[in-house]
Amino acid sequence: MSTNVQSIDARSGVRRAVAQNSTAEEIAEICIAASAASARLAAADRAERSAMLRAMADRLETDREDIISAADRETALGVSRLNGELTRTTFQLRLFADVLEEGSYLEATIDTAEATAMGPRPDLRRMLVPLGAVAVFGSSNFPLAFSVPGGDTASALAAGNAVVLKVHSSHPETSQLCAKALRQGALDSGFPADVVGLVFGRDATRHLVTDPRIKAVGFTGSLTGGQAILEYIDEREDPIPFYGELSSLNPFIVTEAAARSRASEIGRGLAESMTMGGGQFCTKPGLAFVPLGPGGDALMQALRLAVASTPSFTLLNERITRDYEAGVQALKTGGIASLVGEGPDSPGGAVPAMVFEVGTDAVPDIAQECFGPVTIVVRYNSIDDLERVLQSLTGSLTASIHHADGEDASVLRLIEAVREGVGRLVFNSYPTGVAVSWAQTHGGPWPSTNTLHTSVGATSIRRFLRPMTWQSAADVFLPAELRDAYTNIPRRINGQLLSLEQARI
Amino acid sequence: MSTNVQSIDARSGVRRAVAQNSTAEEIAEICIAASAASARLAAADRAERSAMLRAMADRLETDREDIISAADRETALGVSRLNGELTRTTFQLRLFADVLEEGSYLEATIDTAEATAMGPRPDLRRMLVPLGAVAVFGSSNFPLAFSVPGGDTASALAAGNAVVLKVHSSHPETSQLCAKALRQGALDSGFPADVVGLVFGRDATRHLVTDPRIKAVGFTGSLTGGQAILEYIDEREDPIPFYGELSSLNPFIVTEAAARSRASEIGRGLAESMTMGGGQFCTKPGLAFVPLGPGGDALMQALRLAVASTPSFTLLNERITRDYEAGVQALKTGGIASLVGEGPDSPGGAVPAMVFEVGTDAVPDIAQECFGPVTIVVRYNSIDDLERVLQSLTGSLTASIHHADGEDASVLRLIEAVREGVGRLVFNSYPTGVAVSWAQTHGGPWPSTNTLHTSVGATSIRRFLRPMTWQSAADVFLPAELRDAYTNIPRRINGQLLSLEQARI
Repeated sequence: MSTNVQSIDARSGVRRAVAQNSTAEEIAEICIAASAASARLAAADRAERSAMLRAMADRLETDREDIISAADRETALGVSRLNGELTRTTFQLRLFADVLEEGSYLEATIDTAEATAMGPRPDLRRMLVPLGAVAVFGSSNFPLAFSVPGGDTASALAAGNAVVLKVHSSHPETSQLCAKALRQGALDSGFPADVVGLVFGRDATRHLVTDPRIKAVGFTGSLTGGQAILEYIDEREDPIPFYGELSSLNPFIVTEAAARSRASEIGRGLAESMTMGGGQFCTKPGLAFVPLGPGGDALMQALRLAVASTPSFTLLNERITRDYEAGVQALKTGGIASLVGEGPDSPGGAVPAMVFEVGTDAVPDIAQECFGPVTIVVRYNSIDDLERVLQSLTGSLTASIHHADGEDASVLRLIEAVREGVGRLVFNSYPTGVAVSWAQTHGGPWPSTNTLHTSVGATSIRRFLRPMTWQSAADVFLPAELRDAYTNIPRRINGQLLSLEQARI
Repeated sequence: MSTNVQSIDARSGVRRAVAQNSTAEEIAEICIAASAASARLAAADRAERSAMLRAMADRLETDREDIISAADRETALGVSRLNGELTRTTFQLRLFADVLEEGSYLEATIDTAEATAMGPRPDLRRMLVPLGAVAVFGSSNFPLAFSVPGGDTASALAAGNAVVLKVHSSHPETSQLCAKALRQGALDSGFPADVVGLVFGRDATRHLVTDPRIKAVGFTGSLTGGQAILEYIDEREDPIPFYGELSSLNPFIVTEAAARSRASEIGRGLAESMTMGGGQFCTKPGLAFVPLGPGGDALMQALRLAVASTPSFTLLNERITRDYEAGVQALKTGGIASLVGEGPDSPGGAVPAMVFEVGTDAVPDIAQECFGPVTIVVRYNSIDDLERVLQSLTGSLTASIHHADGEDASVLRLIEAVREGVGRLVFNSYPTGVAVSWAQTHGGPWPSTNTLHTSVGATSIRRFLRPMTWQSAADVFLPAELRDAYTNIPRRINGQLLSLEQARI
């Protein structure tokens, strides 16, 4: 195997060496440096870490042109989408700066000494503390927002943990440019550059996740990729948390009344959502439920037309292209699904969008994620029929329900049918496009993730923190946020959650 | 293997059949019933579940005499300790009723639709929702507070999940009596009795944790027991969270100045703490650090005297007694540790308390948990010496530091040396006795636990919840707590955490 890391032009296939695969010794050194940087981050106050995240966002903005140009070459996602993704990424870093400043993520809790029905209780003060160095895996489909400068990195850094990134082979140069900006942002704000480290190469995975200095792993990628990492983690003496975002069908449900009243709007919207980013979103609606009958037929017609005029897509890399072609080939020849819509063919390696149709009986066989611009539409007969099929699905990040006014009872039944299997329930809208905010959940039951946490939004920070309690500690031995007189964050005191003005003892 | 489940008198060894080992079919049926009961719990409002927890506590009080009598016979822990433990248990159930009523554990978060730097954000509303049926393993050492009616059960029920308990073989009759009370409490408050189910027998473990209806597992026990359960969980297609509280040395550190000023107080206190409950507490100080020199010598003398007058203990069961005897025998004959204190011998199966002494160089070899009334004292030379040894320890639930006034700098060094490895830092006090409260942390780095959560106190409820977000949902499709006009809980609205009066949109 070559020791060179190649940056591949996704459109032309032209390759260029940009780095060397990391050796075991290099990875160990990077983890040691990350561990030392973690201690520095953990010892800093929240304002300092917050300033670092803002400085990192600023540096990414400064280098925007170079980053976008490299990312477009390596991923073919287009400069418009990539500019949006970088904006999302800097927004994300700044949101975590806000989260730090607001400070309630610490869950600061004080029980003063008092007599209870259980006997005397000592003074107990709890808050969340960082874990230490964290490993993050870059994802193919979001070279910015879920890779080197992405949500896992931003939340781990905010929590006070340095990050070692395993660079995705689809965008090494983009990763280098982003790491340079993040490391410069760290230096700008008085932290060591090693709060962010990079490792390269397939062999790096095992060395990284079995390194004793690594205390948690964040991953966004395929089910098989996630399972391989989990097996390496199992080799460790100490189990560490693995936060994997893996595989999701994202059922997309249209009621009969919705199909009747908004057939073309929903058909066009579904076409747009399933092909967004070349259908390479983890929230792509991969399994749609459309009623039989005239409303559903009209929706299918709109979907078919929209897909027919959707230009073909250069997918992220050769493996994804190959898997997409194999996946749609299997659907075409499997005898279960009918190809009912297809985008224009195009020269070169670009692939057309496709829509398949099946009956409800086909669902158990057909229900698996196929990355790329394809969706399978399940035509259902009745709400009973639909309910039964929905209950048979495995977990997803999202489910979407398109309904009309005046059918609350049916919608409540559909919610009940999908609720236990999803992390986000979308109404009369589309699952793609995951806002970075306080209330977001990007995480759901297996196999969509293996965690009880979101990987997007403010609360994703909880993944990289653990609780710690100080018992009968003098003020000088407490973290600032747990001292009597501290007033800058909401705290719970003797069971009462107090806002800023009230939170002083 | 006999199908009988035996209740064994811990003092006399007399056995009596009280149940049958559960068959695979029975376990599957119990899990199905628990799954249905979970749906009922999840659909109930918080006030109803809170009333159930209080009714369960009341029923345990009603049956107190029978429960204590069975528990004392099965565990030999003594009626005084067991009465205290039942009081703790009912207190715990009522604390979770308070946690439900207060409602901030839901982390209700609302982001209203608005324009952001990332583009338009839809209305997003997040809260935590229950997982479904949960398996809990009874522990040998706390037949009440960590078993059928214990913290795992209370927090899982509070969160809205039914519980299937694997009964510990050391106290089946106590378990049956407790389950009867809990099930009656459920019925009293309009819930099905099956919110609590029991399974018996060694083979039940695998059937239980691989059952598809089980969504999480709580366990307090040995490292080997926990690892066995983890292997069974690995057989599942869908990984589920395992919350294991396993093995902890609980370093107990005495500074030179503390030893000089409070030698006999600390010596006596350590003797009491290490022998509490027969030394069968997960927070037992199993490794003490006492300075060489006159202060430390005086402390050792006080410890030795206190242990010499501590009556011997009937341990929880034959296996624990055997392991204790083997453990102290290995220390006696290993050539590393010196036996420096011992309780009086007694007839029958009771075992004496013991104190061993080693130098700091012995620590890597000697540092493993030995269940029962034994502690190992490490005599150290200097704070440098101490710091180095502390940094080499594996994770613990607690560390305790006894210090004097005016030595803040040394104490801060010691805190730094242990901080990364513990969940609770205790000052000038003892680690045994874990208050059930809002700020408690009973959980620490591996091998003390494998989780980033506490298993005791209000926040342990988070283990049995996952986040879910509703996007652009009409009020009627939202849980009550996320509707615009709801005002009974603190909520975060557009990033601001609001107390009750403010939390209305």
